[in-house]
Amino acid sequence: MTKVQLNPVGWMSQLSQLEVALLQDSARSPVYKMFRNCCLAVLNSGVDEDNAEALFSPYKDFDITLLRRERGVKMELINPPEVAFVDGKLIKGVHEHLFSVMRDLLFMGNKYAFANESCPTESAQITDMVFDMLRHADAIDGNERLNTIVCWGGHSINQFEYKYTKHVGYHLGLRDMNICTGCGPGAMKGPMKGATIGHAKQRIKEGRYIGISEPSIIAAEPPNAIVNELIIMPDIEKRLEAFVRFGHGIIIFPGGVGTAEELLYLLGILLDERNAEHPYPVVLTGPAGSEAYFEALDEFVGKTLGPEAQSKYKIIVNDPEAVARYLATSLNEVEQYRRQSGDSFSFNWSLKIAHEFQQPFVPTHQSMAELPLHSDQPIGKRAAALRRAFSGIVAGNVKAEGIALIKQNGPFALNGDPELMERMDKLLTSFVAQQRMKLPGSEYIPCYRIS
Amino acid sequence: MTKVQLNPVGWMSQLSQLEVALLQDSARSPVYKMFRNCCLAVLNSGVDEDNAEALFSPYKDFDITLLRRERGVKMELINPPEVAFVDGKLIKGVHEHLFSVMRDLLFMGNKYAFANESCPTESAQITDMVFDMLRHADAIDGNERLNTIVCWGGHSINQFEYKYTKHVGYHLGLRDMNICTGCGPGAMKGPMKGATIGHAKQRIKEGRYIGISEPSIIAAEPPNAIVNELIIMPDIEKRLEAFVRFGHGIIIFPGGVGTAEELLYLLGILLDERNAEHPYPVVLTGPAGSEAYFEALDEFVGKTLGPEAQSKYKIIVNDPEAVARYLATSLNEVEQYRRQSGDSFSFNWSLKIAHEFQQPFVPTHQSMAELPLHSDQPIGKRAAALRRAFSGIVAGNVKAEGIALIKQNGPFALNGDPELMERMDKLLTSFVAQQRMKLPGSEYIPCYRIS
Amino acid sequence: MTKVQLNPVGWMSQLSQLEVALLQDSARSPVYKMFRNCCLAVLNSGVDEDNAEALFSPYKDFDITLLRRERGVKMELINPPEVAFVDGKLIKGVHEHLFSVMRDLLFMGNKYAFANESCPTESAQITDMVFDMLRHADAIDGNERLNTIVCWGGHSINQFEYKYTKHVGYHLGLRDMNICTGCGPGAMKGPMKGATIGHAKQRIKEGRYIGISEPSIIAAEPPNAIVNELIIMPDIEKRLEAFVRFGHGIIIFPGGVGTAEELLYLLGILLDERNAEHPYPVVLTGPAGSEAYFEALDEFVGKTLGPEAQSKYKIIVNDPEAVARYLATSLNEVEQYRRQSGDSFSFNWSLKIAHEFQQPFVPTHQSMAELPLHSDQPIGKRAAALRRAFSGIVAGNVKAEGIALIKQNGPFALNGDPELMERMDKLLTSFVAQQRMKLPGSEYIPCYRIS
Amino acid sequence: MTKVQLNPVGWMSQLSQLEVALLQDSARSPVYKMFRNCCLAVLNSGVDEDNAEALFSPYKDFDITLLRRERGVKMELINPPEVAFVDGKLIKGVHEHLFSVMRDLLFMGNKYAFANESCPTESAQITDMVFDMLRHADAIDGNERLNTIVCWGGHSINQFEYKYTKHVGYHLGLRDMNICTGCGPGAMKGPMKGATIGHAKQRIKEGRYIGISEPSIIAAEPPNAIVNELIIMPDIEKRLEAFVRFGHGIIIFPGGVGTAEELLYLLGILLDERNAEHPYPVVLTGPAGSEAYFEALDEFVGKTLGPEAQSKYKIIVNDPEAVARYLATSLNEVEQYRRQSGDSFSFNWSLKIAHEFQQPFVPTHQSMAELPLHSDQPIGKRAAALRRAFSGIVAGNVKAEGIALIKQNGPFALNGDPELMERMDKLLTSFVAQQRMKLPGSEYIPCYRIS
Repeated sequence: MTKVQLNPVGWMSQLSQLEVALLQDSARSPVYKMFRNCCLAVLNSGVDEDNAEALFSPYKDFDITLLRRERGVKMELINPPEVAFVDGKLIKGVHEHLFSVMRDLLFMGNKYAFANESCPTESAQITDMVFDMLRHADAIDGNERLNTIVCWGGHSINQFEYKYTKHVGYHLGLRDMNICTGCGPGAMKGPMKGATIGHAKQRIKEGRYIGISEPSIIAAEPPNAIVNELIIMPDIEKRLEAFVRFGHGIIIFPGGVGTAEELLYLLGILLDERNAEHPYPVVLTGPAGSEAYFEALDEFVGKTLGPEAQSKYKIIVNDPEAVARYLATSLNEVEQYRRQSGDSFSFNWSLKIAHEFQQPFVPTHQSMAELPLHSDQPIGKRAAALRRAFSGIVAGNVKAEGIALIKQNGPFALNGDPELMERMDKLLTSFVAQQRMKLPGSEYIPCYRIS
Repeated sequence: MTKVQLNPVGWMSQLSQLEVALLQDSARSPVYKMFRNCCLAVLNSGVDEDNAEALFSPYKDFDITLLRRERGVKMELINPPEVAFVDGKLIKGVHEHLFSVMRDLLFMGNKYAFANESCPTESAQITDMVFDMLRHADAIDGNERLNTIVCWGGHSINQFEYKYTKHVGYHLGLRDMNICTGCGPGAMKGPMKGATIGHAKQRIKEGRYIGISEPSIIAAEPPNAIVNELIIMPDIEKRLEAFVRFGHGIIIFPGGVGTAEELLYLLGILLDERNAEHPYPVVLTGPAGSEAYFEALDEFVGKTLGPEAQSKYKIIVNDPEAVARYLATSLNEVEQYRRQSGDSFSFNWSLKIAHEFQQPFVPTHQSMAELPLHSDQPIGKRAAALRRAFSGIVAGNVKAEGIALIKQNGPFALNGDPELMERMDKLLTSFVAQQRMKLPGSEYIPCYRIS
Repeated sequence: MTKVQLNPVGWMSQLSQLEVALLQDSARSPVYKMFRNCCLAVLNSGVDEDNAEALFSPYKDFDITLLRRERGVKMELINPPEVAFVDGKLIKGVHEHLFSVMRDLLFMGNKYAFANESCPTESAQITDMVFDMLRHADAIDGNERLNTIVCWGGHSINQFEYKYTKHVGYHLGLRDMNICTGCGPGAMKGPMKGATIGHAKQRIKEGRYIGISEPSIIAAEPPNAIVNELIIMPDIEKRLEAFVRFGHGIIIFPGGVGTAEELLYLLGILLDERNAEHPYPVVLTGPAGSEAYFEALDEFVGKTLGPEAQSKYKIIVNDPEAVARYLATSLNEVEQYRRQSGDSFSFNWSLKIAHEFQQPFVPTHQSMAELPLHSDQPIGKRAAALRRAFSGIVAGNVKAEGIALIKQNGPFALNGDPELMERMDKLLTSFVAQQRMKLPGSEYIPCYRIS
Repeated sequence: MTKVQLNPVGWMSQLSQLEVALLQDSARSPVYKMFRNCCLAVLNSGVDEDNAEALFSPYKDFDITLLRRERGVKMELINPPEVAFVDGKLIKGVHEHLFSVMRDLLFMGNKYAFANESCPTESAQITDMVFDMLRHADAIDGNERLNTIVCWGGHSINQFEYKYTKHVGYHLGLRDMNICTGCGPGAMKGPMKGATIGHAKQRIKEGRYIGISEPSIIAAEPPNAIVNELIIMPDIEKRLEAFVRFGHGIIIFPGGVGTAEELLYLLGILLDERNAEHPYPVVLTGPAGSEAYFEALDEFVGKTLGPEAQSKYKIIVNDPEAVARYLATSLNEVEQYRRQSGDSFSFNWSLKIAHEFQQPFVPTHQSMAELPLHSDQPIGKRAAALRRAFSGIVAGNVKAEGIALIKQNGPFALNGDPELMERMDKLLTSFVAQQRMKLPGSEYIPCYRIS
């Protein structure tokens, strides 16, 4: 049995004794298994595997213990994966990530009671908590230069698309922009990799490659090798809020249902009347050959949410430099707006997020079946319902709990306006046709059924 | 009417909106007057004046407002003292100190409810709070090199003694030690000033000059010009705990009752059986000509607490280099002990502090009269009672509330064993004879009466 | 006509007025054309092209002027390639490289009179000059950690081999090693690229990617995108001396004649009796599938220089981690030796380099024909002659002057021992067979003839 | 016999082997004694003593050797003064200063052949050499913010004046200005000491306290404790040129003949027609009570050089803040002028210095007697002659060689216009009356005689 003890780094190296005691208690809580799994995912940083079971199965005897010392807390890894070590020493970036997991899941988890559902539910409190988590992750400081670009897109895109995301990242890096993604492979890795070259050419040593994940997805998308700041938000809704408040502009690369979910979330917020004047640059982009993806998505948005929704983003095909230039220019407007409104440069407080976009949606056969998927409601509500539908499908595809549910009870049934359902089915079918539902190679079996 | 707006710095520049809202509320609370006065004291940094009234009277129309912005909180000074400005711009160190005051009095004050007496009372919680305040002040980080020397002593010592404190500071600085004091003039300033020269000669740019004050004393002892980190603890007991847990060694220079209080506090803790093995270097030192002071003090300790108490400190007369060398050597033992006990290098968690040394003592005519000043009790209790007696006398001498009480009701009456009372009277009389009770020049009128 | 003015950076920003005047004069000297061409190569950093003509032909109207200002010298680019600019602003790394070219070719060129052949010729002076050039390039400072690995190998290797060099670089980077190469594509780029990922994972921000080039090769091998320190030595012999004195270990990847030249240079030095005790780790490595290359090379060395020469390197096939581990271990011996011999950690003064390895060899039909290619001479002389033969072939292949000579007078004739000539022919034929003589795609026409 | 070996720091840590060999040779040259004495002076940094003999006599057995190592040069101190050590370890600042002495006297001394009089004599070359010495001292870099104030004045001023120089330094420090002086006690120390407090209050950690000395004066004025950059120019003329080209403004405090020499040097340059438009802020200042000094000096300038000369400086009495404010404002003009003229911000190339101000003046009885001290010549020549006369008197007062000459041959005789001689005598008499010719306490015996 191999045992490795780790000294705390970052915020975790300065805990009070009561805080350490609380941490240790939490190691016996229901959160603990999640903590152990996230640590295992982090220890596999850089390994290409999007199947949690495949990733975890060789490490059944892996475990993790918190050791209390007068001076603070230590972590003890039992039988950790060898891939995380160099000549017997843990890679420094992985070391840091492990304590980020401890910080976000256990320490902040205790503070906000993730586990026992007394987690904040009021809108202002949720936003405060999102801010507080980013602040503890030391992410707020250094974000005031309005140069953080959030990149969304699939983790299993093809080689052309992957190279394209690298080129876009390269041109962002040349313009001194930082990259924030969901922290797995594919479109979450490419822009970071490209940006490192752009940063190197401009002699920028402080480039930030921020990965914002959540416990149920991190196993499927362990942080890639470039991520130098890891943040784990408690659920998908807080993760999405972190993206839109932390980032200054957003790029959407080709992806699957998850990417569609993200776009709908974003549109739902930007279509909120209270945000009508709020400039928020959003670009949909991909290489030549990926037009079909954007056409399908754009058509879906146009038909379900209307032209106003389409006006909230710009589509740029096969021109990485144009993408970077468009964002660079748009960020001037963002700056102007933040100055006018007195808003912070490092956290977008003034963007309004309606409660239905903040409240966690737990996909079950019942909650999925009850989604109000009809056109006869305000545009924001429509976007919210569609977002949740896609969210449920993501869960059914890649999250452990979702997969289990589907195994047990068969595919989710979705009900709604025939017109809307048809649009949705068409979009999802196009994703399947484009092989965007799974890593290339394995056949996709849908986890939903449109009735 | 002059108005100056200040942007937040340090921790205060990263507040959430709920935190800002709370801060603003506190500006209407009873804490507010204390906050305004501490800010005024800070704006007079470096001015030599130990009479709060004299310091404050020219600034009756000074006021301070908190302005809420989307991005955080700003401070607005109304009619601030000109001495804090250079060509219309606030001195940077003063700017930082103002936000330290806001952090400790308002932000941490809200967190620990200083004002409404729901402040922590349990021992472990008090220690945690002391740690938390030092941590928020960014003081813990960088204190792990076991080189912080706490210097206690009078704020109105004579020129020989003042120069001596500078020499000691110089030799500490040459040995890469940082200085932590109560942050006023005299023995609180000299060691810092000397250390800057020592640091400069050794090309140490990160020298720390930490002032730990409390609201009721800061007006009488505004931070001197050298202090580059200001921390304001809510009361004298937490301030003393901060000193002993944050520092790695202690020097006691000549002083008055306040210094005697500090020594008794320290001895009370070091005499605690649970700390019997705990190495804690303590030096009493002064120049040739100040022997009388140490003889009086040492005799008092010997007669009231016994030889074990005397063994807890070392007296060095007129040899600044020997002081520095003794501490440098002793710190090796401290290091060894912390390693053995697994204690932190930057905060002394393992030192036990009995509850009677943590609980705030509010001196009134009644509480002073009731102090158990008799020999017939454990040594620790005896030290605690004596400490409180001296604490009350300090309040009667220099703190606004204490002075008011004396004005109203005459001197405090102290009761106790005749033997003990005689010792105490003798010590206090010697202080008066040595002119250690007030700034030289004004005659001292005792604020106590031994019955 | 586009004109861009550049302010000096690095050493060039602190010139005296006499130095500036000298610089300006040199702009009218024969060195000037070389300077202009090197600048053009640098402006094409990152472009994949190993044919100088193809690279330069689109930029016939490119020119460069030095502007004298009271405060120093400025560079003016006329019609520079667009690829070096981002939104109209020169990429910072390219900016730095341009002034490195000015420093090495003009400023140091003046100092050592590169152009007029009064360049130092005595052994100790040559070494001093090599040191002085590295020092002016600010390369010596920061090289004292014994972690600079020189990587040699071809610039036109295949994809498998390229990926392999990246993996090796990755494992070197994980072990905190810096990479020094000849600064073009292929085996000169891969290890740097891999190391950036290794450095990123270990949170090393100060990774060094040093390219040491020379004027006649830089056009064929413009600095890749990763190079963050560019040094241009006046000729191939000083460049090779810079590699062996600056690096702490050497890896040889598959390559062509140039790589063989480098290996023979290195063996010639390590076989010098005076260096018999000098530990110098050398690894020949490549992926599975490239064994043929090393077998051919190793056989050639064995047959021409003998087993002692073979003992100076270690061959590792297809195991990047083993390469990195072997070097890490060997560097301990290097450290020990430097301590014992009192040698510098940042520049290997104590390695002896015989005069025939320092003296520039100018390949012409005559000098090539006169090379003493026979076995009947000391091993060091043999290695020196072979090195020069390969050097001439490299010139005939890729350097402008060499290519012109061949165009004019046909291939170089080489004479010598039949046995030796046969070995040589066999090796060169194997290089052709493995397509190592040119970028893949174009057919190779030999520039030499063995008589 | 105590021996201490020192590793080189700064530029001296990166020498080539030929450079080291040259250094060692110079240790056997006539320069060596000067080197040994300067090192001894530096080892006495911070000791108050202006009599070279008194300073050196206890250290007759002090010696210094250069040790050659493969990696470079080491210094070995034999029987060094204990005052430079802390617990057996050399103070870091002293360590740095020792290698500054080696750099300037031996290394640069070799380069410019100080000893054998092949030192540059042409105007442009002298200026280049001054620049080169400052550049090697790493002083040019970081001087581009136009905030270096040169302070001249006596080393033996009274306590009021000394305190005043501290106050001026304090207000300069508050305005982020750096201090450059001649590096001894008195007016050379006060402004630095004051500036450290101003810098500390403004949280400026990179404050520069530059001492520019010369070999014949450093023993009489060893660097004070604050100096963090020491530069030793080969003679008084190059030292003065370094002051005026390196500084951005000049303050002249009360002093003696040396200060008068400096003022005349400066006026001679500023009165040069070619500098007519050149803005150069100069302030003469002192506390209340020192008016007599400035009146005497101003009257002397008015009568000997005329009102134009008087217009080149501003006299401010007893107002430290006004001095700092005046300089801060004037530096804006300096900035404008440098921009217009394209001059460097860190070295004033465009100021013209006539040859007679650059050429070393060696005071002997003959050269002093031959000085053309008459009014019937251009104003610049007049200033030059007067400057030299004062220079000779300084030598006779404090420099070893000058003192020896006087001992041997009696006082220097000065001849010239009766009017001019009377003015001069009056000024010098006033200095004696004000006790500005020696450290207070010893009687002054004039080293000159006006015939």
